[in-house]
Amino acid sequence: MEKSKTPTPSNNLGFDNKVDSGKKRTINPDGSFNIIRKNNFWQEFSLFRLAITCKWRIYWIIVLSVYLILNFLFAFIYYNIGAENISGITGNNCNQFWQCFFFSLQTFTTVGYGGLHPLGMITNAVAGFEAFLGLMTFALATGTLYGRFSRPEAKIKYSNNVVVSPYGNEGKALMFMLCNNSKGNLVELSAKINFSWVDIDVHGNSLRKFEVLHLELDKISMLALTWTIVHEINEESPVYKFTPEDYIKKDVEIFILITAYDDTFAQIVHSRSSYTATEIIYGAKFKRAFYTNDDGLQVLDVSNIGEYEKV
Amino acid sequence: MEKSKTPTPSNNLGFDNKVDSGKKRTINPDGSFNIIRKNNFWQEFSLFRLAITCKWRIYWIIVLSVYLILNFLFAFIYYNIGAENISGITGNNCNQFWQCFFFSLQTFTTVGYGGLHPLGMITNAVAGFEAFLGLMTFALATGTLYGRFSRPEAKIKYSNNVVVSPYGNEGKALMFMLCNNSKGNLVELSAKINFSWVDIDVHGNSLRKFEVLHLELDKISMLALTWTIVHEINEESPVYKFTPEDYIKKDVEIFILITAYDDTFAQIVHSRSSYTATEIIYGAKFKRAFYTNDDGLQVLDVSNIGEYEKV
Amino acid sequence: MEKSKTPTPSNNLGFDNKVDSGKKRTINPDGSFNIIRKNNFWQEFSLFRLAITCKWRIYWIIVLSVYLILNFLFAFIYYNIGAENISGITGNNCNQFWQCFFFSLQTFTTVGYGGLHPLGMITNAVAGFEAFLGLMTFALATGTLYGRFSRPEAKIKYSNNVVVSPYGNEGKALMFMLCNNSKGNLVELSAKINFSWVDIDVHGNSLRKFEVLHLELDKISMLALTWTIVHEINEESPVYKFTPEDYIKKDVEIFILITAYDDTFAQIVHSRSSYTATEIIYGAKFKRAFYTNDDGLQVLDVSNIGEYEKV
Amino acid sequence: MEKSKTPTPSNNLGFDNKVDSGKKRTINPDGSFNIIRKNNFWQEFSLFRLAITCKWRIYWIIVLSVYLILNFLFAFIYYNIGAENISGITGNNCNQFWQCFFFSLQTFTTVGYGGLHPLGMITNAVAGFEAFLGLMTFALATGTLYGRFSRPEAKIKYSNNVVVSPYGNEGKALMFMLCNNSKGNLVELSAKINFSWVDIDVHGNSLRKFEVLHLELDKISMLALTWTIVHEINEESPVYKFTPEDYIKKDVEIFILITAYDDTFAQIVHSRSSYTATEIIYGAKFKRAFYTNDDGLQVLDVSNIGEYEKV
Repeated sequence: MEKSKTPTPSNNLGFDNKVDSGKKRTINPDGSFNIIRKNNFWQEFSLFRLAITCKWRIYWIIVLSVYLILNFLFAFIYYNIGAENISGITGNNCNQFWQCFFFSLQTFTTVGYGGLHPLGMITNAVAGFEAFLGLMTFALATGTLYGRFSRPEAKIKYSNNVVVSPYGNEGKALMFMLCNNSKGNLVELSAKINFSWVDIDVHGNSLRKFEVLHLELDKISMLALTWTIVHEINEESPVYKFTPEDYIKKDVEIFILITAYDDTFAQIVHSRSSYTATEIIYGAKFKRAFYTNDDGLQVLDVSNIGEYEKV
Repeated sequence: MEKSKTPTPSNNLGFDNKVDSGKKRTINPDGSFNIIRKNNFWQEFSLFRLAITCKWRIYWIIVLSVYLILNFLFAFIYYNIGAENISGITGNNCNQFWQCFFFSLQTFTTVGYGGLHPLGMITNAVAGFEAFLGLMTFALATGTLYGRFSRPEAKIKYSNNVVVSPYGNEGKALMFMLCNNSKGNLVELSAKINFSWVDIDVHGNSLRKFEVLHLELDKISMLALTWTIVHEINEESPVYKFTPEDYIKKDVEIFILITAYDDTFAQIVHSRSSYTATEIIYGAKFKRAFYTNDDGLQVLDVSNIGEYEKV
Repeated sequence: MEKSKTPTPSNNLGFDNKVDSGKKRTINPDGSFNIIRKNNFWQEFSLFRLAITCKWRIYWIIVLSVYLILNFLFAFIYYNIGAENISGITGNNCNQFWQCFFFSLQTFTTVGYGGLHPLGMITNAVAGFEAFLGLMTFALATGTLYGRFSRPEAKIKYSNNVVVSPYGNEGKALMFMLCNNSKGNLVELSAKINFSWVDIDVHGNSLRKFEVLHLELDKISMLALTWTIVHEINEESPVYKFTPEDYIKKDVEIFILITAYDDTFAQIVHSRSSYTATEIIYGAKFKRAFYTNDDGLQVLDVSNIGEYEKV
Repeated sequence: MEKSKTPTPSNNLGFDNKVDSGKKRTINPDGSFNIIRKNNFWQEFSLFRLAITCKWRIYWIIVLSVYLILNFLFAFIYYNIGAENISGITGNNCNQFWQCFFFSLQTFTTVGYGGLHPLGMITNAVAGFEAFLGLMTFALATGTLYGRFSRPEAKIKYSNNVVVSPYGNEGKALMFMLCNNSKGNLVELSAKINFSWVDIDVHGNSLRKFEVLHLELDKISMLALTWTIVHEINEESPVYKFTPEDYIKKDVEIFILITAYDDTFAQIVHSRSSYTATEIIYGAKFKRAFYTNDDGLQVLDVSNIGEYEKV
C-alpha cells in the first residue's frame, strides 16, 4: 500500500506531482491555466461570464448579431401575418419585407415613429411582445456592459525576467519587479510565490516538487512606484544548491499570486503570473525605473520596468 | 440545575445536539438547509431575493405575468374612461377593449407609435403615469437580471462518495474529491469539514456530536485540476475506532464548507455540501481524473470526478 | 498633567468615558447611533445614500415628485416658447398649458406618440434635451432601485431580553438568543459583545467603563436554527460581583456586533444591537424555539425566539 | 557588491529610500500619490475608471458632449443621404439640416414622435442602427452613473494637525484626530501609521527611513463620535530623541491608512492621508469635539475636529 496511489495534490497549488514527458507550462504568463477541460461544456457554460470576459470586439459582434437576428425573426413573423396589418407599408413584396424589418427595428428599440404602426389583433400582440423583449434585451446589455466595466482587474506589469542578483553580504537573491499598470491606486498588496522543480527520488522516479518561497517582504501598504520582490537564496532556500544550469535541467517554474485592494472599485483583486526556467537571468540586477525630475516630482517610466544589467 | 436545559448549540454549526428519532438529514447535498421556518413569512419575504434566486423559468413567468397583468389593468382603466379618448380606436366594444390594451402596451413599453394616442385630460394623465410605471418596472427588471447574472456561485463538483482509503504507512484516511465546474478561476480555496455522529452518553441518552476534522491540507492557492481532501484516521481522529458498520449505526453526517475567491466576479464564494453514512465507501480509492495528452497539455475529464476502485 | 485631559476613547467603541447626567442610550436597538451631528450637512449629504437607505414610501414620493416637478418645469418652458410650436395643440390657454404638460410627459418618458410633436428650432431643441434628461433620470432611478435591492442587510432577530441563567456546575451566565430572519443563508458568523457600565473611581468620579465579554463560542459556521450567545460569569468576568440591582444602578449597556457572510448576495453583512439594564432578566432561561415534526423535519418558530421561563 | 544597488523598497510603502534634494511630499493630503507616470498612457487608460472618478462637472460635460457629437454626426449622415428620405422635412437647406438633427435626437433617445419619420432603405437602416446605438449609450450612462454613486468612499475628516501632547505620567504622545464625515456608519476600523524621516548614515549619506508607529489603540469597533489616534513617544519610539526642530530638519512625513467597513454599501473602504513636518504642533492638545445637550443626547460638532490649545 502506497500513499502515492491516490492522487492527492502534494502542494498548495492544486497541481499534480506526476511528471509526464513533454509536459507544457501549467500557467501561462497572463495567469490562465494551460489545461483542457472535458465533458462539462453545458454545466460550465455561463452566458454572462462569456459576455463579461470576452474581448470587446467579440462582445460587440455578439450584441449586434443578437439585435439583427431577433429583428429579422420578427420581420419574418410580421411578413407572414401579412404586411397589410402594418399601416403605412407600400410597394412590392421585397420592399414589404424590408418595411416589416424596419417596423421591427422601430418596435424593438421602442422608437415607434408611427409612420409604420400595427393594425389588427395578431400584429399588435406580436409588436407588444417584441417591445417587451427589446426592453429586456437592452436590460441585459446594460447589465453586461456594467459587468464588463466594473470587473476589477489588477493590471500589474511584471518584469519580463527573474534575475539572480548579488544580495547583502556575499549572498544571492531571486528577484523580480512589478508596478501598477493602471491609474487606480493599489493598497495592501501581498505576494505569494511558489517555486516548482523536478526532482529525482531515491528510486530514480521524476517527481515535481513545490515549495513556497520565503520573501524579504511579502506585504506592502501601497504600490506607489515599483515593488521588487526578493527571495534570499540562503541555506533554507530550496534553490540553495542550484547551479545556473540546474534551472533549465530541473524544469523550474515560478508561480506568482499577487493580492491587492483596488481603491477605485473598492474590491480585492488578484493577479497571477509565472516564469519558466528560460526567463531566469543569472547574475544580473534590475535598474531603477524612476527618478526625481527638476520640479522635485518622482517620475515612474513604466517602459523601464524589468530593465536589468549584467553584474 | 443542568447546563443542558438551555438550548445552547454544542458545536459551531448552529445545530442542536438533541437526537429526535426519525430525524432527516440536516443539510441537503445542494447545500440548502432541511429546516421548516414558521411565523416569519412577511418578515422574511424579499421580492429581490426571490427574483434573483428562483429558477429562470419562474423568473420569466413572473416578469411576463407582471407585464400582462399591469397592462390589462391599464386597458381596463382606459376602457372605463372611454375609448373615445384614444384617437384611432374604431370598431365595436370588444375590439375597443383590445385596442385599449394595445394602447396600454405601446405606452408601458414607451413605443408610442401614435396610431393610437391619448386625447383629453384624464387619459393623458393616466398614460403619463403608465409610461413612468413602465420605465420603473423595466428598471426593476434590469436590476434583477443583473443581480441574477452577477451573483457569484462556487460551482464545485463533488465526488458522489467519501472513500475510506489506505493512506501512508499502514494508515487509513477519509477522502473526497472536488473540481471546479465553471470556466472561471477559483483561487485561495479553503475547506472546513464537520463530522457528526450519534453517541450514547453514560446515562444511555443519545446525543449528536460534532467535531471539526483535521485535514492534511485545508488551503490551496489555486484549483487548476482536482482537489482531494484528506483526513487521516489516526489516534486523534474521532473516526479512529469506527468499524465499517458504525458509520451507518451512528448515523454519520459529514458537512463541508468550501470558501474560495472567484476571479471573474472578484468576490468570495462559498459552496456547501454534505455526505450521509450511505455515501461512504469503505476500502476504495479514487482514480485520477486527468491525464497528459499527446500535445503535452493536461486534460481534466470532469465526468470522471469521484470514480473509485475497490482495494 | 493628566492623561484624561485629551479626549482619547478609552475603549474600542469610539465612545467617550465621561458620564453626563441624564445621558440617553448610545446605540438604539435597531443599531443606529443616538448622536446629533452638527455643521456638516453639505459635506455629509449624499443623494444616493439617502435614496437607498430611506423607507420605500419616501423613495416613491421622491421619485414621483422629481418626475412631476421636472415635467411641470418643461411644460412651463414649452408654454412660454409658444404652444403653437407643438403640432396638435388646440383649445384655450388653460387647455394649452395642460397639453404642453402632456407633451412634456410624452417626451420625458420617450413615449413620443406623435399626436403632439415639436415644430420650430427652439421647441425641438428643448424637447431633445428633455428626452436626454428623462433617460438620465430613469438611469438614476434604475441605479437607486438596484442599489436598494442589492444592499445586503443581516436581518437578524434578537431575543427581546438578555437573561442571567444557571450555567454549568453551580455557575451563571449572561445569554441572549438570535436567529436569521431572512430566507437567505448566513454562514461564518462571529459575535463581539461589549459590556459597558458606570464605575466610581477612587476620587469619587463617575466613569463609564467598557469591556469585551469573553464568549463560550464566538464563531459559528452556519446559522441553521438559533444561536444562543453565552458569556459565563466567572471570576474573570466584569459582571462577576454584580448583584441584580447593580445592573440598573450602574446603568449597564450591552453592545452587540454580529458579522456574517450572506450567501445570496455574496457579501459580508453586519448587524448591530444593544440591550440596556431594564432588558436584562435575572434568573431565567430561554425555551427552545424549534422541534422535530412528524415528518422528521426540524421546524423553527421564529415568533418563539427569546421566550424564557423563570428558574 | 552592495545590497543597495538593487532598488528594493526598504519599507512597506512601496517608496524609495533615496533622498533627492528638493523632493516634494510623496502623498498629498487627499490621499493621491504625487508621482508622474510615463509611457503607459494607453495601457492605463480606462474610460470607465475616468467616468466614475472624475468630478461631476466633467462627467456631465462628457455625457452631453458625446450626446451632441453623435447626434450631429448622424444629422450629417441623414442630410447627405438626402433630407427627402425623412417624411415631414420642409423648408430650405439650412432648415433641412437642423430638421435632420432633430430627427436624429428623436431617434437616438427613442422618442420617435413620428412627425419626422424615415422613408427608404438607407435612412431606415441608419435610423435602426442609431436607435440601437442610443440605447447602448444610455446603458453605458446608466452603468457609469450607478458606478459613481455606489463607489464607497470613506469620507473621514482628519484634524489639520498632529499634536505632540503631554501623555500619561510625564510622558508625551503624537496624536491626531478624525471623525466620520458621512451619514453612513463606519464599523471595524483599523489604523496603520507610517513615520518617515531623513537620516544621515555613517558615511554621511542622507537616507529616508520608514517605521510603523505603535499605537495605543489601532482598532475600534465603531466610529460613533471621534477617534484620537495616539502614539506614545517612549524609548521604543523612533521619535523618542526628536527635538521640536528635528521634525522640520529631518523632513518628517507621516502616512496614514484607515480601513473601515461601510455599513450602507456593505464594503470595505480605505482612507489615506499624510502630514508633513509643518503640520505638527509641539506642545498642544485637542479639545473635545462633542458635548451632551439638555435632552441627554450627545452632539458632535464636526467643525470642531482638530481644534487644539497650547499647553
